Amino acid sequence: MKLYDSTLAPNPRRVRIFLAEKGIELPRTEVDIGAGENLSPAFLAINPRGLLPTLVLDDGTVIDESMAICRYFEELQPEPPLMGSDPREKAIVESWNRHIEFDGGLPVMDGFRNGHPRFAERAVAGRAGHAAIPALAERGRQRVAEFYAVLDERLRLSPYVAGPAFTVADITALCIVEFARTVRMPWPAGLDGLERWHQEVSARPSAAA
Amino acid sequence: MKLYDSTLAPNPRRVRIFLAEKGIELPRTEVDIGAGENLSPAFLAINPRGLLPTLVLDDGTVIDESMAICRYFEELQPEPPLMGSDPREKAIVESWNRHIEFDGGLPVMDGFRNGHPRFAERAVAGRAGHAAIPALAERGRQRVAEFYAVLDERLRLSPYVAGPAFTVADITALCIVEFARTVRMPWPAGLDGLERWHQEVSARPSAAA
Repeated sequence: MKLYDSTLAPNPRRVRIFLAEKGIELPRTEVDIGAGENLSPAFLAINPRGLLPTLVLDDGTVIDESMAICRYFEELQPEPPLMGSDPREKAIVESWNRHIEFDGGLPVMDGFRNGHPRFAERAVAGRAGHAAIPALAERGRQRVAEFYAVLDERLRLSPYVAGPAFTVADITALCIVEFARTVRMPWPAGLDGLERWHQEVSARPSAAA
Repeated sequence: MKLYDSTLAPNPRRVRIFLAEKGIELPRTEVDIGAGENLSPAFLAINPRGLLPTLVLDDGTVIDESMAICRYFEELQPEPPLMGSDPREKAIVESWNRHIEFDGGLPVMDGFRNGHPRFAERAVAGRAGHAAIPALAERGRQRVAEFYAVLDERLRLSPYVAGPAFTVADITALCIVEFARTVRMPWPAGLDGLERWHQEVSARPSAAA
């Protein structure tokens, strides 16, 4: 089994933190996305979408998409549970994880890739080239601001994103808000719920992954 | 338990087909998205995101996001399996389902909502109003064309989207390609893999859901 990884991007970090919380160690290969290695023929032969992370099982099965990779390890080793323990919990965790991905992760990427000169001709992650759309960068930044307000409201009421326990939804949220901060869309001051939660989850040993 | 539903939108149909495949019947309430009922105070009190489908459990727990609702029923009633039966299968199904959602579903929605006068001030689904971006409609249509080619290639090699068995990834793909066709982004002629698969999955009784 091998994990194709990138220390520059937020999605591979989700998987690294998930594995750290599970205490699972894997052979990893860093793919240099800064040099475009994810779009090289060698990597596209492994994952034609050119995306990271990508997990290759011993039988050659290729799994991409962070949540699918996390699902594999959650099913293989349920403890500690990071995706809920019964049907209701599993649904709640998946619901919140998707809120964070769709209302937070997508807008951050819209704001970042459509606003950075580096991605002027590759504004959509992966193989196909698409020109940046400046108005979409602006919409992304507006939606990120809305997302921070909603996330803060949630975290004033709930210890963790999906309820009383730390789950993959917290991992997703941590990776997104810290990536957003890195690319100049930091959360504003005064969001006490988000701040309290961020201090707590970023202090877990797994956050160093 | 109650399902808030819409017969106009593609995501609620995913859940209806999933339930039909499982043989599960639920009380459903149609929410008239054409009249904006999903953004009424009454519905926002149930789901503040204003999105459908939304499932409310008997204990009051609210689950939105189609895949989270499907997960709930898959965990409650695993037969017939629609999300895989072991860790490897579950990861493969989730990986393919997400390919379809991100590479197909998002571009279809970009192309539709940013290009239709009805959504000129509500180009992002849900509560917040965001103005349409014509260049994003165009990018969406280009990406949908790319998606059809990739999906066709897959379905020339594989009986179903995620492999040898019908799964939720087929449900997602069916709802997306038929919705795209309805909103004037039909798949082109000559995609024999996609056509063969579409004839098969659209003939299943569940497709009428």
